[in-house]
Amino acid sequence: MRAGLALGLGLGLALLLAARRRRRAVREVLFFPSRPCCTEELLAEAEGRGGRPAPCPCPLPRADCSFSRLLRRLLSARRSLELCLFAFSSPELGRAVCVLHRRGVRVRVVTDSQYMALRGSQIGVLRLLGIQVRHNQDVAFMHHKFAIVDKKMLITGSLNWTMEAIHSNRENVVIMEDAEYVRPFLDEFERIWEECNPENYTFFS
Amino acid sequence: MRAGLALGLGLGLALLLAARRRRRAVREVLFFPSRPCCTEELLAEAEGRGGRPAPCPCPLPRADCSFSRLLRRLLSARRSLELCLFAFSSPELGRAVCVLHRRGVRVRVVTDSQYMALRGSQIGVLRLLGIQVRHNQDVAFMHHKFAIVDKKMLITGSLNWTMEAIHSNRENVVIMEDAEYVRPFLDEFERIWEECNPENYTFFS
Repeated sequence: MRAGLALGLGLGLALLLAARRRRRAVREVLFFPSRPCCTEELLAEAEGRGGRPAPCPCPLPRADCSFSRLLRRLLSARRSLELCLFAFSSPELGRAVCVLHRRGVRVRVVTDSQYMALRGSQIGVLRLLGIQVRHNQDVAFMHHKFAIVDKKMLITGSLNWTMEAIHSNRENVVIMEDAEYVRPFLDEFERIWEECNPENYTFFS
Repeated sequence: MRAGLALGLGLGLALLLAARRRRRAVREVLFFPSRPCCTEELLAEAEGRGGRPAPCPCPLPRADCSFSRLLRRLLSARRSLELCLFAFSSPELGRAVCVLHRRGVRVRVVTDSQYMALRGSQIGVLRLLGIQVRHNQDVAFMHHKFAIVDKKMLITGSLNWTMEAIHSNRENVVIMEDAEYVRPFLDEFERIWEECNPENYTFFS
């Protein structure tokens, strides 16, 4: 009887632990402005142009900061990246997206029609590289600021992908793998992607 | 032996189920623009000025929509409400916050110094009622858009609390009770609240 009880309890506990392990999903919160830190080596390494990249001569600290953490999460993409961004002008984030595209990651971008034309926007750079970009057609803002990595990690928050937001403003970014959050955002991306399909444009009512 | 095994397994399963029940936290995603819907009765009922509120004569549907869901989550506050908002001009959200204040909920607001002075801002209304409001002192934006209900429910996303955002823009709001997300936002609120304490203002360097 005692041996059976111990065996049963052991099995039950193993079940509980397995369930806990299975849901060890990424759950991270980043706040901005990011402490200043050098992201050059992180990006150069990701670009991987043969050999070890030369050390960056800038005086910024190499320590982790909110911005380098965000970049790392983004650079972890292996298959797909969906971007739904109101404003995208950060050169570093632009470089990261280009790296992923060159690596063969399928990148799709939806952005705001008014903000994509502003000076410093990265949208033109992405388009020149052959990355698919679509935009809304109405006057209301496409105000989302989210990314989905490999269909399983959601990066969302108040942060526009601009230098001002990263280095000056008070902002937040939440990174999560819980399917209850990722799935609706994926569905919403596909809905907006189709809505912004140029084939569906209506020039005259 | 068999009875013991069954008992042990039963106990293990009970543990597993209890663990699952305990973490049934709110996890909701809302997208905007919200479908048009009437929120008058929801707000009038919350105001509770005696008796059943008169039915609203407007032609909008009474069905649930993203906006009414957001309002309901907010109105569920019983003890405290922390608001960290870049722009706050929605009259309905303003009414909801006033209701909570009158009900005895401790409301604290941090907002952006430039946006709080715009026409239509609800900040003046809240201050006149005696609600504590603080704002940043620097030129960078206080760009957060989050609320914390009773220290346990986080409401955050891309949505500014304006009519344009609610009824026109493409926006998202995530509502969550997972402590891994709520706790850092609470800490960040307290940090910003103290940073924006008028006692700490520096008028001359």
